[in-house]
Amino acid sequence: MEFHTTFRPVTVQPEQIEARSFQIIDEEIGEHSFTAEQYPIVQRVIHASADFELGKSLLFHPDAVRAGIDAIRSGKLVVVDVQMVQAGVNQARLAKFGSSVRVYISDEDVIAEAKRLNTTRAIVAMRKAVKEAEGGIFAIGNAPTALLELIRLIKEGKARPGLIIGLPVGFVSAAESKEELAKLDVPFITNRGRKGGSTVTVAALNALSLLAERV
Amino acid sequence: MEFHTTFRPVTVQPEQIEARSFQIIDEEIGEHSFTAEQYPIVQRVIHASADFELGKSLLFHPDAVRAGIDAIRSGKLVVVDVQMVQAGVNQARLAKFGSSVRVYISDEDVIAEAKRLNTTRAIVAMRKAVKEAEGGIFAIGNAPTALLELIRLIKEGKARPGLIIGLPVGFVSAAESKEELAKLDVPFITNRGRKGGSTVTVAALNALSLLAERV
Repeated sequence: MEFHTTFRPVTVQPEQIEARSFQIIDEEIGEHSFTAEQYPIVQRVIHASADFELGKSLLFHPDAVRAGIDAIRSGKLVVVDVQMVQAGVNQARLAKFGSSVRVYISDEDVIAEAKRLNTTRAIVAMRKAVKEAEGGIFAIGNAPTALLELIRLIKEGKARPGLIIGLPVGFVSAAESKEELAKLDVPFITNRGRKGGSTVTVAALNALSLLAERV
Repeated sequence: MEFHTTFRPVTVQPEQIEARSFQIIDEEIGEHSFTAEQYPIVQRVIHASADFELGKSLLFHPDAVRAGIDAIRSGKLVVVDVQMVQAGVNQARLAKFGSSVRVYISDEDVIAEAKRLNTTRAIVAMRKAVKEAEGGIFAIGNAPTALLELIRLIKEGKARPGLIIGLPVGFVSAAESKEELAKLDVPFITNRGRKGGSTVTVAALNALSLLAERV
């Protein structure tokens, strides 16, 4: 008997594709030490990147997942560093809890202040964010400078995020900024190394709001 | 004499970070067979993902870069599959050439038609796009079904894109859809394997509009 294994019908229903994808991830991930609470976030990061190395590089503060769920359920703001992350986040699901997404980097006052101080908009946006979004989720997928500024503000007692998702990508300062974050005793989700970015930051946020709905 | 190599000042100016990042990429990429015309796109994809494997998995139709530059310079539309790609693309740079970005997936008529046909919005969005954006750039970073539908429409003579950027990510149909694209004799930029996504699709589009400006 012969099997024609090259015949693969295209699955068109998004729910089926997602379920099958998660099954493949479970089969291929191999050994790891994530908790049952952390795993759905790892799984969704791998789903969004098709990158097991990236998924397995994630680091969680022990309180991170619970803190993220609590922040969403109590309707705290979700601050993101760039529009691209905002565009990817499931805002309807956050809205069910009274939560919403804020991005400050293109605000007129942020642009003006960055010019005045000769610094980056990412840094000034963080200074504005910590004033407006106490207890919220701060998700940074791009600018290491934004993450470093947030860390500085926390150390100075000027910021109290509910959760920090720090996943900037890149060759300069990204890995270093995440190492600094991982030293703090505040709820964080981050990863080791250069990889990260908007797509995986969105994946982590969407995984959290799904958990807020389900758990 | 002793060097304190652990002292690393943070570079805050985005232009400096970008220049240094590109330098690191040049140093670390190793052997490859991309042309001088293709390399800036590879470089920017690696910059956005910090993933050399992903960058080196890119495949270019011989006419791809030239076709993409021509499409932008002649003000053709850039069709993208999801809002997240639209949010990341440098729209101001495209606007200089009279080009702009379209995303159809959330259009009311697309949603209604997808329900009526019991198919995905991604597929119906492509059917609408090929009618409105002849000769444009079609950039797909997420849904393999959208890319497969576009391929089908091309084969049936119903679509004539100027360039296809096909970089869907995922475990189900993504790699297969890109293999199908790479068989066509139309200008394409794609890659081998499961990796891809919004971030690298944006990187490829922004690299192209930079080339349109510079070359």
